[in-house]
Order: sequence, then C-alpha cells, then structure tokens
Amino acid sequence: MSKVHQYIEANKEKYLGWLEKVCNQPSVSAQNRGMEEMFTIMKELLQSVGAKTKTIQTEGYPVLIGEFQGEKEETLAFYNHYDVQPEDPLDEWESEPFQTTFRDGVVFARGTADNKGNIIARLAALDAYQAVHGKLPIHIKFIIEGEEEVGSPHLEYLAKEHTEDIRADAILWEGGMREVNNKRLHVGLGVKGIAYVELISKGAKHDLHSSEAAIIENPAWKLTWALATLKDRNDNVLIDHFYDEVKPLTDKSKQFIETLEYDENYTKENYEIDEFIDEISGYELKRRLIAEPTCTICGIKSGYLEEGAKTVLPSKAVAKLDFRLVPGQTPDRIVSLLRKHLDKHGFEDIEINQLNHLEPYNTDPDDPFVTQVLDAVAETYEEEAIIYSNLAGSSPMHKLLSNCQMPAVQVGVANTSSKFHAPNENITIQDFIQGTQLVATIVNKFKK
Amino acid sequence: MSKVHQYIEANKEKYLGWLEKVCNQPSVSAQNRGMEEMFTIMKELLQSVGAKTKTIQTEGYPVLIGEFQGEKEETLAFYNHYDVQPEDPLDEWESEPFQTTFRDGVVFARGTADNKGNIIARLAALDAYQAVHGKLPIHIKFIIEGEEEVGSPHLEYLAKEHTEDIRADAILWEGGMREVNNKRLHVGLGVKGIAYVELISKGAKHDLHSSEAAIIENPAWKLTWALATLKDRNDNVLIDHFYDEVKPLTDKSKQFIETLEYDENYTKENYEIDEFIDEISGYELKRRLIAEPTCTICGIKSGYLEEGAKTVLPSKAVAKLDFRLVPGQTPDRIVSLLRKHLDKHGFEDIEINQLNHLEPYNTDPDDPFVTQVLDAVAETYEEEAIIYSNLAGSSPMHKLLSNCQMPAVQVGVANTSSKFHAPNENITIQDFIQGTQLVATIVNKFKK
Repeated sequence: MSKVHQYIEANKEKYLGWLEKVCNQPSVSAQNRGMEEMFTIMKELLQSVGAKTKTIQTEGYPVLIGEFQGEKEETLAFYNHYDVQPEDPLDEWESEPFQTTFRDGVVFARGTADNKGNIIARLAALDAYQAVHGKLPIHIKFIIEGEEEVGSPHLEYLAKEHTEDIRADAILWEGGMREVNNKRLHVGLGVKGIAYVELISKGAKHDLHSSEAAIIENPAWKLTWALATLKDRNDNVLIDHFYDEVKPLTDKSKQFIETLEYDENYTKENYEIDEFIDEISGYELKRRLIAEPTCTICGIKSGYLEEGAKTVLPSKAVAKLDFRLVPGQTPDRIVSLLRKHLDKHGFEDIEINQLNHLEPYNTDPDDPFVTQVLDAVAETYEEEAIIYSNLAGSSPMHKLLSNCQMPAVQVGVANTSSKFHAPNENITIQDFIQGTQLVATIVNKFKK
Repeated sequence: MSKVHQYIEANKEKYLGWLEKVCNQPSVSAQNRGMEEMFTIMKELLQSVGAKTKTIQTEGYPVLIGEFQGEKEETLAFYNHYDVQPEDPLDEWESEPFQTTFRDGVVFARGTADNKGNIIARLAALDAYQAVHGKLPIHIKFIIEGEEEVGSPHLEYLAKEHTEDIRADAILWEGGMREVNNKRLHVGLGVKGIAYVELISKGAKHDLHSSEAAIIENPAWKLTWALATLKDRNDNVLIDHFYDEVKPLTDKSKQFIETLEYDENYTKENYEIDEFIDEISGYELKRRLIAEPTCTICGIKSGYLEEGAKTVLPSKAVAKLDFRLVPGQTPDRIVSLLRKHLDKHGFEDIEINQLNHLEPYNTDPDDPFVTQVLDAVAETYEEEAIIYSNLAGSSPMHKLLSNCQMPAVQVGVANTSSKFHAPNENITIQDFIQGTQLVATIVNKFKK
C-alpha cells in the first residue's frame, strides 16, 4: 500500500482542490440553498473518477448513488450526505463559511468535518488506488443523501424501495474523528437508539387558584408520581422487561470498552460536578456510556414558570423523556412497555406522545470487517484506535440498513475540535491525508 | 334598628354619591397613581362623619386611622384599604374604570367591590346611626392601609410599632361577598396561611447532550424523586409532623362546614373534570376546602420547554410549592420540617428558597363576636349566612393582628360576580344598602 499512500501524499493539492470546490458550494438542506448545484458537482466529481452514477428521486432531495466496478465480487458501501448545517451565527466565523480557507495546516469551511471531507477522502482514495493499480480490487458503492441534517426523512423509503441500490457486504458510515490530544482515531461500531416521548398529564380545563388544590386534582403531582415509578435512585429503569432484550456484552466488546480513554477529572472540572452518576468511575463509567440504556427527563413543564411566586394550580403537566436504547432494544417495544407500566401503576390517563425514534444499530465486534478496518488503522496511524462498540449518541444507521443488514463501521477525517454544526468548522490537512490513506487501505484489505 | 335601616334606605343617594366620589379617584398602588389624592379624600370623608383621623407614615403609602367615640367602652375596628388593582385590560371595560357608572341597579367602577364599597358602607352605617341616635354606641376605629394590592409590605411594621393604634376588641375584615344565585351572605372567620417555596436541584454547570445522561446526574430526576417523597397518591403530606399542630375542628366548625353549599356539578362542568381529588364529595369536600392543609406543585421547570424534541440533559430543575396552612400551623415550622424531610431522604443538596409566607388566622367560632355578627346577618337578610370557619384562600390578617389578637370576621357588600381585579368590577345597589344596614346592626349589637 505504500505506493498508494505515497500517491495520495504527492497529489494532496489535487484532493484539497476537490475539497475546496465542494465546500465552496453551500448546500443547506434546512434552507433549500444550493442543493441542486451541490448534487450536480458531486455527481460530476464521482463520474470524473470513474463512477457510474444514478439519481434516486425522493419527495425531498435526491439521493446520489455512485458505483465503481472492481476485480473481486465484494462490494463495500460508503454512506455520506451532501447537505450541511446552516452556518449561523455568521459573526463568529473567522473566515467565510462557504469560502474554504487554509490556515496553518487546517482547512476551515462549513462541511469540512460534516461531512464533505469524508466524501472527498473516500473518493480520493479510489482515485489514487486506480492511478497506482489501474483498477479497484472490489466494487464500491457511494450512497450520498441530501437530508441528513434535517433528520433523514426519506432514508426508510430508500431502504424499502431501493434495497438493491443499497445492498453491499459492508458499509463505512459517515462521521468519525480523531482525538486532538493523543491523536487516537475513533472507530465506531454502532449507535444507541432513541425513543423520545412526551408524557402529558391533564387536570382542570384551565389553571386555577392554588387554594382549590384542596379539592381539585393536580396534574403536576400525578406526573411526578408517575415519573418516580419509572426509575429508582440508583438509576435502574423500573419498567417491566425494559432490560430483557439487552444483548449481553461479548468479550470483545468488554475488551474494547477497557481500551477506551475517558478523562474523568477533565469532565468533572469542565461540568463542575463532584461525582459521576451513582459515583461510578473507570470501566463502569465507560460501560454505561457505551452499553447502558437510559431513561432521561429532558424537560418538565407545568404551571407557573417565571420568577417569583404565583399561587396557581396547573391544568397540565408535560415531561419530555429520552430513552437511549442499546442493541436488542427497539423504540416501539420500549414505548409499548412504558404504556403498560403507566397503566399498571394507575396512570391510564397520562398520555404518551411519541416524538422521535431511532433504532439502535450495532456491528458484531468479531465481524471480519471490524478486524480489517482495525488492521488498516494500525497500518496507517501510529496511534492505537479507540474502539466504540457503541457510540453514546444516535444516528439513522438502522433506517438505511433495516432491509439489508451489513456490518457498519464509522471512521472519518475530523477531530474532537472540529466544531461540528458550529462556526469555524475545520479539519486538519494531516487528518485529511491520513484519512484518505486509511480508506485506500481498507479498500485494499476488504474481503467477505 | 328599623329606624337606622330606614334612614340608610332614605339617604342612599347621599351614600352612593360618596361611593361615586371615592371610586372616581384612581388609587393604583402598583403604579403610584392618585394615592395621595385618594388618601386626602378618605381622610376628609372620615372627618366629615365625625372621625378624629391620624396619619401613620410608613416607607410606603401612609396608613389612615379614623377614630369615632361611642357611649360604651367597647371598640370595634374595621380593616380596609384605599388602594385598588390596575384597571387593565382597558378595552374590556364597558364603561370608564374610574368613572362610576350606574346601570340597572349595579354600580360599575374599579374599587367598588375591592374595597371602596366596604369603606363607604361602613362609614355610611356610622353616619346613619349618628343621625338617628345622635351618638354611636361603641368606639370605632378605621384602619385603612394603602398597600393591600401590593402585598401589604408594611402591615407587620404597623402591627409592631403602632400596636395601640390597632388595638380593639374585635375587627371586621375587608372583603366578603354574597352568592349571586341564592343571595346568601358569606361570613368568613379566618384564612389559611401560606408557605411558598422553590425547591432547586442542580446538576452540571450547563445543559448537556442527553447521551451524557448515562454518566452525569440529572437534577430533574432528583427533584422528581424528592417531590414524590412529599405527598402520597391519596394526597397525604408525608413530611414528619406536618399535621401535628393542626387544631382539631370544634363541633361548631363542623356544623358550619355542614351548612356550606358547594355546587359540585357546577364545578365539574365548569372545570371539565370527572371527579374531585380522591373522589371526595359532600362534607369531606367542604372540610378539605376549609380545614385541610395542602402541598401544591404550582410550577415545575427543567430542561427543554418548547414544542417538539430536544435531547438535552438539564443542568437545573426548579419546583414551586405552595403549602396552605390551617390554624396551628406556621410557615416557619413547615419550612423547617420540609428541610428536615429532604435531608432525611438524602436530598441535602436540594435548596429551599422561601418566597412568600403568611400565617393562618382564625377566629373561634364560639366567640361572642361571631354570634353577634350572625345575629345581625339574620336581622338584615332574609337568606341564611354561609359561614366559612376558614376561607380556602389567604390574607394578611395575622400580619396586622399578630401583636393584638382579636376576633376577626369578614363580611362585605360585593357578590360572587363582582369581578374582583378584573374589568367591569361592580356591586349591586341593593347589596351596598343591605351591607350598610348590616354594619349598623353589628355596631348596635357589639359588646365584649
């Protein structure tokens, strides 16, 4: 692979030029700004490297499929998106968000980290491999959607109606980053799911004077009592069967958790807290972050919310709850268990309003693709990888892959200071080049 | 008394003229509008009927004391206030708020019900009594403050520094009203107290992404758990010793509660509720309204409060709690018990911020003054009185009377449709005249 790596290094100006070009083009899906132009630039860029492209229309922005033929029968897919977040607040940018700027080895522009940098690194890897070897060793399939920043509303449609356009033997997911302090690359093998609901408790038809609380039910009390039945003070979720489907951690997963670094003192100082939840630390802390499902009050609202005192009996109380789910759990099942739990405890009249849901998605740590990626990381970087068997956050992996499950691994060219979704989004040139070399190495190693 | 009653009826135009004059003068304490003018008008009006007046300066608006000499040694005090609520929203008034308007036997103006109508009725009663009998039978002491509508901030000062100006054998409190549908007059013998606190639970120094809830404590959960320890689902307050000082109801109090009318179906329809709290009705419902201390969540606030989903781990959670206290209980004692309760249950780090407090105040239903007032009501009105041994609401009775306790009874000229604090505040001419006759009868009957 050293020749391909050298080629990438030698041609970095060309690849940075591609990056500059795609980052100079705004593509803000939330504001329908530059989306068509961006799609065309992407399509032509893929074609220029040898892809056969296909446009899949949706009710939103189209999905770009780009296929490269390789020598062997294996197919590796790349999931990316050509849309970016809005750039505001504009006055906090040190250079124009849509005018790519290079300063001290760092590339600044909206989309560098999330995730045009990854698209270009992946494309550059194919270009370099072809330049050195003439032909790719395997088939490659780019899947580039335009709605990731607005919740990927048509990914399920894509998964269901265009399954064959997605099908592959494995997929590299978008995202991924490198630690700024120790340079270790994050390798993500899955994401937690989400069930986000509102619990709504209602009383009289309008707020009353609190002297009436002696005789009129208070929905805020009812909601409080209901919430208190959901989780005990050791943070065990008390909903029957909540943990039943949680898959036990494999030895490999436990080993990956062991190898994670987590700077507990930094977090304590940064957040100004004395202890972590339940006074956990070390392995248990990392295990919970990666592998523990949660039940979180994200918001509660009832009655008088302003400064000072108002003697009011509320007519309504609402709690927003976020369940983070781990492999084995599904949002529908959890919401159904929640309903049963509330009914069982006499809270039949508390409504559940389901707002968001995302299934968890998880790649078996023993899958050969994981080993291949980790080998490729070891060949490309000096520093050992940090392996997240499950990221604490969520992502629409399951939406895309529900009909054709395949191992999914997240690696990318950003870093922990890349300012995702924020002003002065950036990546380093070094990470961009090494990330490109990594993709080329993965492509070279890939086999079923 | 028939002569005095007849005199009042015969001179009603004069007394309505007094009412018109004081209601035409704005006196909005919250906006410092017309306060000085109002004070002067009141002082001169009292003097014109024979009062010796005294002005007590405070750091706020002055208190007007007006003393009338009578034949016997007994002194009856009247507590009133010369300030009114702001008149907005102005566009909902059918006539000018500070231009007294008579329509179909009803007097409309800000202050008619709360409580210039009562001041004038009380003064008119003295005027009529003197006109018929030459001299009052007892001493009378008007205590008219100017800050009731802004929380009576100097009543405690008055009670402490001017005790002798307040001292009397009994006091008629401001407020009071008559039922619109059955014409029965409310007679109030006391008020519940209040302890209003905020419970504040803190987590990390700012809100975090909810994926961190796996390892960082959530102050909203902590507050929920703490609240759930305060009251059980049968609405028993679980704070140790909370009920210890509650005075048992006397037979007379129970009898008064029995005689109350409460239209349960009307409330159910009006508030759109199926049942009252704990499915109570009849005597138990009336008992709770009058005699049960409460613990009410008036507001809860934490994390994301807007529409839709935001995956946030809150940094802070606040609940506003209103304890309504009955005779025997005191706000300081209750807040101290609350602190002990939270500590005992492991919530040492939940802060208590005490916002408001008012002591309960209660007149013994067997006190002779109560009997005299009830006899006077029976002589003046055809309809039986409705006796509230304790009003469900609160009032600064204890603030004024802490240093010289005396029986306090609330009767007045307003009615249940008087629109207190709202546009189109009003009283009926008939209630004003009968209320004046009632005061004359009480004055006539009063003895220690």
